This record gives sequence, C-alpha cells and structure tokens, in this order.
Amino acid sequence: MAAGEFELIDHYFKPAPDELAPDSVVLGIGDDGAIVQPDPAQQLVVAADTLVADVHFPADADPELVGERSLRVNLSDLAAMGATPAWFTLSLTLPPQWPEEARRRWVAGFSRGLKACARAYDCSLIGGDTTSGPLTVAIQMLGQVPPGKALRRDGAAVDDFVLVTHRLGDGAAALAALKGEVSFAPEHASYLQQRFYRPEPRLLEGIVLREIASSAQDISDGLLADLGHLCAASDLAAEIDVAQLPLSRALEALPCEQAYHWALTGGDDYELVFTVAPDKMPLLAMAQASGEIDASVIGRIVTGAGVHCELDGKPYRLARAGYRHFE
Amino acid sequence: MAAGEFELIDHYFKPAPDELAPDSVVLGIGDDGAIVQPDPAQQLVVAADTLVADVHFPADADPELVGERSLRVNLSDLAAMGATPAWFTLSLTLPPQWPEEARRRWVAGFSRGLKACARAYDCSLIGGDTTSGPLTVAIQMLGQVPPGKALRRDGAAVDDFVLVTHRLGDGAAALAALKGEVSFAPEHASYLQQRFYRPEPRLLEGIVLREIASSAQDISDGLLADLGHLCAASDLAAEIDVAQLPLSRALEALPCEQAYHWALTGGDDYELVFTVAPDKMPLLAMAQASGEIDASVIGRIVTGAGVHCELDGKPYRLARAGYRHFE
Repeated sequence: MAAGEFELIDHYFKPAPDELAPDSVVLGIGDDGAIVQPDPAQQLVVAADTLVADVHFPADADPELVGERSLRVNLSDLAAMGATPAWFTLSLTLPPQWPEEARRRWVAGFSRGLKACARAYDCSLIGGDTTSGPLTVAIQMLGQVPPGKALRRDGAAVDDFVLVTHRLGDGAAALAALKGEVSFAPEHASYLQQRFYRPEPRLLEGIVLREIASSAQDISDGLLADLGHLCAASDLAAEIDVAQLPLSRALEALPCEQAYHWALTGGDDYELVFTVAPDKMPLLAMAQASGEIDASVIGRIVTGAGVHCELDGKPYRLARAGYRHFE
Repeated sequence: MAAGEFELIDHYFKPAPDELAPDSVVLGIGDDGAIVQPDPAQQLVVAADTLVADVHFPADADPELVGERSLRVNLSDLAAMGATPAWFTLSLTLPPQWPEEARRRWVAGFSRGLKACARAYDCSLIGGDTTSGPLTVAIQMLGQVPPGKALRRDGAAVDDFVLVTHRLGDGAAALAALKGEVSFAPEHASYLQQRFYRPEPRLLEGIVLREIASSAQDISDGLLADLGHLCAASDLAAEIDVAQLPLSRALEALPCEQAYHWALTGGDDYELVFTVAPDKMPLLAMAQASGEIDASVIGRIVTGAGVHCELDGKPYRLARAGYRHFE
C-alpha cells in the first residue's frame, strides 16, 4: 500500500464495523501489505486483470457498474481455473484533474459496486493502492483449488468435445450498442447492458468441471482467439460448427452473419470454453440435467493447429476482421 | 491473464528454457491464472503498488530502470512486513500509439530490468496481463511470513525508540535532480540516480526486525507521512530529533534546511521506519554490530497523536509544504 489517498481508502474500502472479515484475513487494508492464512490443503490460484477507461469501459460509465465489472472479469479467470475466490487487491488510478467532489462520488459508487460483488462471491478486498493518472482499475485475485484439480488450457486431447457455457456474442453486441453502432429492442438492450457490466463469472461451473473437463479457459478476447490459445497450449486444433454456437434471443434477432461474427470474435463474454473427453460426456449430461451447468457442444478437438469453422459442412469465413475492446 | 499481446508476454516474460521455475510454481505464465503451492507453515503477505509514467517515473526513463524500480518498490512493502518474497504478477499498460518497434524495445528493456531484479531477490513472475492505455506498471507481490511474525504498523508503545534504516531524503533529492531543479556534484548525482531507480528493498533488515521491532513500515510517501500512519495505527505520537536524521553525503552537501526538508517529507526513499521497545535495544545493537542492519535512532514514541519534530530542543517547522511524486 503506497501513495496517498488514505482517507479515501479508509472511508470507502475498509469493511464497515459491522462487516466481519473472514477468519482467513489476518490483517486487511491499512498496512504495507495484507496477511492472509491460505488453506494448507489447497493450492493458490493467482490472476490479474486491468480495466482502462475508454479501452475496457466508457470513461463516463456508472462507477458502480465499473466496480461490478472489474471484479467479475477477474472472478471469471478463477472460474476458468476451477478455483474458489478468496481475496483480492485493488490498484486504482484516478485522474488528478478530477475535482475532489467528483473523485469522492466516483469512488463511492465504484466501491459500492465492488463490495456488493465481493459479498456476492464471498471474497475479500485485502489491500492495494491508489495513484494519480488516467482512470484505471487493476485487480489481482487470489483463489484456492485442491492440488492437481485446477482446470488448465493444456489438457485437451483428440476427439474431445468442445463446449461453451451459456450464450456467446452478447458482450460484443452490448459494446456496439453502448457505442451507438446498433440499436436493439428495449428488452434486448437492457439484457445486453447487464451482460456487459455484470458478466456472470462461471465459478460453480468451473468447480463442477474440475471432474469433467480436460481443459478450459474463459472467453475474454473472443471464442476464436481464446479457443486458439487452448488449442495452442494443448498442441492440437479445433473444428467448430458455427450453427451450434449458442445465441441469446438478442443475437438471434440479428442477421445470422452479424450474430456469428460477434459470437466467434467478440470479447467480453466471460463464458467458459472447455473440452470433455467422450467418456466423460455422461458425467456432463448429469451435471446439465441437475442444472449445475448450462453448456452447448460446438465442436471437436482434432490433430493440427488452429481453430477451423464450418457451416452446413463447408468452411465458414468471417466477413470482417475481429476487433477488440471498447473504442 | 486477459487481453492480447500474448506474443510479447511469451517472448519477454516467460522464463527462458534454461531458467528453472522454483518448485513452488505449479503453473506459471500462460493460463487464465497461475497456480502456486504456498508453504503450509507460513502466512501469505500480499502487497500491490502501481507506477504511472510521469507521476512515478519520467515517461522517457530507461525502461530497464523502470523494470528494476517497479519490482523494488513492491519488494519494499514486503520488507516492511518482515516477509520473504515469493511470486508476483504484472499488469502492464502500454500506449496504443507506440509504434511496434518502440513497444518491443521498451518491453525488452523493461523485462530485462524486471527479471534481473526478480533473480536477485529470488521471486518469480507468474502471470499478469498487458492492456492498451497510458504507460502504467502495476505489480502485485506475494510473500510469506511465519504465523504471527509479520511486522505491522499498529504495535508501537510509549517510550519505544523510533529508528530508520540507512539514509533519508535521497529519493526526493534524486527526483529534483532528474527534473533539473538542482544539480549535484557528479559522484553525488550518480549515487542519487541509483537510489531512485534501484532503491534497496530492506528485506534482510525486515526479517531481522521480526524479533526486534514493535512496529514498522516502509517510507514511500516521506518520513512524516509514513511515521504518521504508524502512529495513527498505534494510536500514539512520535517525537523526532531532526539533527539525528541520517543523511547521505549528497544531502550533507546541501543547506541543512533543504536536506531536512527532503529527509522529512521526500517520498521514494523505501527505507524502513520502525519502533523498538527499550528492552529490545540490546538485540538491535547486536544486529547492528554484526552488520545485519544499519539503522539510526531518530526519536521516541509518546502519548498523543501526530509526529512532532524538534531541533536543538525547539519545535522544528518545515519551511515549505511537502510535495509528492514526479511531475
């Protein structure tokens, strides 16, 4: 914990007197570092994700939503590892030219969103720092996983099924709507805004998948890019049937080509893409039947390299180059 | 680990094939999160510090020095906790307008400095992310400490001696020199530049002080501010004898008032300020005699609040308001 703004931290980020810190937090916000007691029977999972204003969110976005989103995208990394969230630090950079009142209002809203999300997902803010500069939120998330049980990118095998959780492409569609590039019917617009600012980290799914999936990762840069990383880590290729991509009703209302484009290349979905060996598919079916996971088969793992898309048995080519992030 | 730049990360930040990761790193850079195996007999210490270009370092500074400094200021937080460094993540934000070649050159230099420092202090880069935006380095540092042994800010007691390691004020003097506000004789200028870019994290001192000090913290915002935090955490006050402030020869060459001002208010020293109960002073003397720690008594802890400075038995008033950071 370094430069300045101690009063801000004390006021907005320290737990209120009636909020009990979990026993695992030996020393929280307010010293040079925090002290936590990891579960000696588990391994520690560490992830870090940074959100920059006007790159990852509009600079004038509701700070409460930015707080929610900042934590959720980090929780998504833990979900992709099959880990349970425990603690996190926050490095918050605030523009020096902001008037005091604007700064307080922003931090108050941001901390409200962040803390609500931390409560919902049972993890604790234990420290961090605030600095002056362009509006940036950097979070480091710590979670725990039983030894050897983490989901990794490098475990896919030939003939494994490729699956994704829930729906794809909503994040990119939401961004396009936020930027005024497309407009959606009101019920779809509000659904997409929720999907953008409050992506659901698939934590329970990740825990269930520890015993089922051979590999997994979350989709933050788009299915093609992220499944590509998984394939590269596993030294294999994937074949995707574009017609199987799970789409929300908001995307189903669009021309197919646009919907497929966003589902394949749009970032910010924070769903999981994972692989399952054929003999584990019955386990997955049971998990689906019991409502523990909502997932769709979209393809198979094959030898080779890269991700290949088909539609109606023919190679499917993207109409436009993918794009990334806000702006 | 999220957005883009995977090639950069692979190339510059992954350990080279001949660099063995320590056994504690189960899974390093390249997945959604890293997996480490903490020592079950220790507690985990977590610190985070962010450096923003043109706030904490000149934007045109040698990237190798920026890499060194970024890690060192984070290691200083662990030193102040009496912890041993283990692993860290890096969130690197690079200006999107940088040409490819400039970006590569900067990252190559930065990673060289960072990795050299990581080797020197025996800690491992295990993950992080790179994003587009204003040049910013956010590091999250993980260390370990035996249960109950961490140095904290809230342990000072009345009559404890107040001490600092090594010399004070060099960081502020170096900044003033970097900004061309003052000039120093060549040997002092090069000493100060080293002190600014390569501050020595007082890790061994922190470990020795676990058994000696009643409280400690590192000096990143200036002695008065940081000792003030320690006093506030301990609900006590401190009296400082300005004549006892340990100064380098570079600062001794200045008018007293300027040297005292920097020693009292200058940030970026990354020395430790700590308190020792009278009955522990013999232990400290032994540690000093054996060369384990270089520290000077500068005052005592008293009842009350705040930090009070005296010179020749009279209250000492600062000539100018303190300032913070580069710019």
